[in-house]
Amino acid sequence: MAQRLSAQRVTLISLGVADLERSGAFYKALGWQPAEELPEVTFFRLKGLMLGLIGKEALAADQGRDGAEFGAGATALAQNFGSPADVDTAFVAAVSAGATALKQPQKTEWGGYSGYYADPDGHVWEIAHNPFWPLDAEGYLAEAEDR
Amino acid sequence: MAQRLSAQRVTLISLGVADLERSGAFYKALGWQPAEELPEVTFFRLKGLMLGLIGKEALAADQGRDGAEFGAGATALAQNFGSPADVDTAFVAAVSAGATALKQPQKTEWGGYSGYYADPDGHVWEIAHNPFWPLDAEGYLAEAEDR
Repeated sequence: MAQRLSAQRVTLISLGVADLERSGAFYKALGWQPAEELPEVTFFRLKGLMLGLIGKEALAADQGRDGAEFGAGATALAQNFGSPADVDTAFVAAVSAGATALKQPQKTEWGGYSGYYADPDGHVWEIAHNPFWPLDAEGYLAEAEDR
Repeated sequence: MAQRLSAQRVTLISLGVADLERSGAFYKALGWQPAEELPEVTFFRLKGLMLGLIGKEALAADQGRDGAEFGAGATALAQNFGSPADVDTAFVAAVSAGATALKQPQKTEWGGYSGYYADPDGHVWEIAHNPFWPLDAEGYLAEAEDR
């Protein structure tokens, strides 16, 4: 079975949160709809993977470490959009929903347009337009054969 | 355009790394094949999204923050497998490739089987079997209509 699975895949992105209700309210305000809401975790279905909001304590215990050491990780999740104007719209919507603006959307050195915000727990999201990464109808990166 | 895109999606997972060569070697040892290798970032194509290894300094500058504050984030990325035996195999392969074992694969309270390891920069991966999450042929979560 293992041999048939692609080696490079992600099936769950877990974000540790301090207050599941507050965090869930933020993502719902962005238009996300939960697939499953359990006492310690809220799952949102993406394309072939889940994004889970999970209590920091539960995540720490699960990882066998102390949650107190959790800080700002060297990570970012991104959403790409079809135009700079769509980036601006999404950025304003996120800040309206309670996000902290880290970097206002602006032109980038690599020829795109991008901004950063942090969710209520400090998880960083980039909102970007990349003219070199075509999107499919759902907003995912188009496969080579779709271009 | 913005209205046509799904609100809940991720198109890029960025992992900040201290040494791009070391980090790239780790993921390649796991069988990952880069889609693009640039001076400051290595991209791996997933299903509709990219996973990017990016220099910590570049990521910090891009986020408008000090990279020195980057520590262990309250996050985890996961790969699901079809059986506990496949989880064991993947875990051993990761440790052989240079990962730090955080939690040996074991039965979980929620009826699954999972272990955790950290990549060379401390990014946490869960390797799991979840009998309630069927996988498609590529190893991504099966859509409801596929079950």
